[in-house]
Amino acid sequence: MFHAKIKAETLKEVIDVISKLVDEAKFKITKEGLNIKAVDPAHVAMVDLTLDIKAFEEYKATEMELGIDIDKFKDVLKLADSPSDILTLEYNKEKNKIVVDIGNIKRIMSLVDTSNMVDTKVPTLNLPVKVVVRASAISKGIMASEKISDHIALVVSPDRLELIAKGNAEESAILALTKDMKDDVEELECKQNTKSLFSIDYFMKMIKSVGSGKVTMNIGADYPVKLEFNIADGNGRVMYLLAPRIESET
Amino acid sequence: MFHAKIKAETLKEVIDVISKLVDEAKFKITKEGLNIKAVDPAHVAMVDLTLDIKAFEEYKATEMELGIDIDKFKDVLKLADSPSDILTLEYNKEKNKIVVDIGNIKRIMSLVDTSNMVDTKVPTLNLPVKVVVRASAISKGIMASEKISDHIALVVSPDRLELIAKGNAEESAILALTKDMKDDVEELECKQNTKSLFSIDYFMKMIKSVGSGKVTMNIGADYPVKLEFNIADGNGRVMYLLAPRIESET
Amino acid sequence: MFHAKIKAETLKEVIDVISKLVDEAKFKITKEGLNIKAVDPAHVAMVDLTLDIKAFEEYKATEMELGIDIDKFKDVLKLADSPSDILTLEYNKEKNKIVVDIGNIKRIMSLVDTSNMVDTKVPTLNLPVKVVVRASAISKGIMASEKISDHIALVVSPDRLELIAKGNAEESAILALTKDMKDDVEELECKQNTKSLFSIDYFMKMIKSVGSGKVTMNIGADYPVKLEFNIADGNGRVMYLLAPRIESET
Repeated sequence: MFHAKIKAETLKEVIDVISKLVDEAKFKITKEGLNIKAVDPAHVAMVDLTLDIKAFEEYKATEMELGIDIDKFKDVLKLADSPSDILTLEYNKEKNKIVVDIGNIKRIMSLVDTSNMVDTKVPTLNLPVKVVVRASAISKGIMASEKISDHIALVVSPDRLELIAKGNAEESAILALTKDMKDDVEELECKQNTKSLFSIDYFMKMIKSVGSGKVTMNIGADYPVKLEFNIADGNGRVMYLLAPRIESET
Repeated sequence: MFHAKIKAETLKEVIDVISKLVDEAKFKITKEGLNIKAVDPAHVAMVDLTLDIKAFEEYKATEMELGIDIDKFKDVLKLADSPSDILTLEYNKEKNKIVVDIGNIKRIMSLVDTSNMVDTKVPTLNLPVKVVVRASAISKGIMASEKISDHIALVVSPDRLELIAKGNAEESAILALTKDMKDDVEELECKQNTKSLFSIDYFMKMIKSVGSGKVTMNIGADYPVKLEFNIADGNGRVMYLLAPRIESET
Repeated sequence: MFHAKIKAETLKEVIDVISKLVDEAKFKITKEGLNIKAVDPAHVAMVDLTLDIKAFEEYKATEMELGIDIDKFKDVLKLADSPSDILTLEYNKEKNKIVVDIGNIKRIMSLVDTSNMVDTKVPTLNLPVKVVVRASAISKGIMASEKISDHIALVVSPDRLELIAKGNAEESAILALTKDMKDDVEELECKQNTKSLFSIDYFMKMIKSVGSGKVTMNIGADYPVKLEFNIADGNGRVMYLLAPRIESET
């Protein structure tokens, strides 16, 4: 059983985050809210999103799983006149459909078969470096890099975070965020110089999901980077993991 | 003889309505104003537009026909700086051209030969159901439907109008406008349940032409739907007819 | 040696003007400022742009030449948050690179080899007609013409400038700017009727570069047209030359 009312803007945050990695996903419904774990088809990135019951306007549910087609939800969200419009989501067990009501419109959607979707397990990682930065500052560094290379290095030393892209003929773009730039850098914990290389494409999509807020990045030398940020006014949390690129040469 | 001055926004309304169905059309000029009747190339839809002399800033004409290339008029309208800019239209008999003046620009346009354009006759139809609704409310139902199917059902009962699109695997989108939604539904006259199926594509184009105002829809079971609305601040009227789709199965 | 600080909006003006004709250009640096001369690959048009030292926020240079990839500068300019953002440009002699700093980002760019770029010589032309007009008024005439023909005639008589495009079947678009239209026409010096034909495409790109200001046009019968306008709040000047099209028939 699943019956919930949610603001269009809140559901949009969830759909935006998930759509960066997958077209369909298994929504795990519990009495306490919603959890989505998914790995992208290339097995490079992972998302783990939790939405608390407080993020909903109304919420009644027993434990169940729903296989959601992300694009169909994107289309439904376009029917909202304003971000504060309320969508009603209801699982119809008899027909095995999800029924969405928005304004005067009722949209009856098929569910995706979840029997072939494996459960995603989030690995435990030991990432010694922690940086809390404004996502928009990071975006600028990505913008400066995307025409130069298809990968980007996150380089952290005790006093600064750098995003470095290197291209042909010694071309490069470097974004430097130092510990004293309090507007952009909230926290920087790093004892030892650390460097990892990532796909610009994935990294950009993830950072764009953060919007205008802060993101916590956990980094380890040649380890996946972990990005964490809040959604739904703090009533939801997102964790992205992105695998490092192997560097053929420095 | 034809000499007229007209506001860019008024001419734009005319061109928008006609361009939904045809690329060129026969403009019938009389002393009382302008009338355009046209059928789309696939013979699925018809338009009948009348513009009274009051819609013009200046108007002098004797009875005549002008074959107008709709796209050329669209281009000319882009030269207007503001919706209230005045265009002067003049027929040059000697050269058989239409001359348009807008701002400092004079545009001399060829006419389309009308000798091969048959006269469009508007059929008399007995359509028992009448609904007057806000066009924007209908648009939402079309938006919800266009990814699901290429046709849409108009279903009317004594207390409500529904737009229903059915897709594969029992997916559907339903817009319900009930008689008590006074903001969206101005009038609903229906004695018997009535249903007709239409192409979403055509229906959407027609509804978009209405803009933000109300549209009167006349409906009969498996009959064409008739859409009527005003343009030019009430100094012009549009009638669209759209043929029903034959339903292979319900 | 070259070290300069410049507002993003000022550099953008320079890049916009140059990019209309070429993808890469030789920037001649002197103690007094910057000069760029370039001919487009089809040898139809030429640009000569000068930026005074006053257009810079800071400027230190000895005489030198830099081969600049215009597209890379366009990308860098996108990193500016506001038109008043300051970019620092520095030539790194050791690496033969240009280093651009904007915000927290350092962009190290390769230079284009200038050894194959011939020096552009600006011809001396005797153009008897001079017209100073608002560029936006000219733009309207180009807009009206581009669907009709791929060339446009500039026709000047002692009291007016006309832009005339002629198409098939005696179609035409004529923009007429008369001497008494003081808002659009600041000056018109013409003793003898003069006419030249130009490529609409090139002429449009050049006029668009002027923006909202005035442009001085020097015209001679079947001679190139010379367009001159200021950039950088009067601290820079642009001269475009556009070769005439040979008219097969009038």
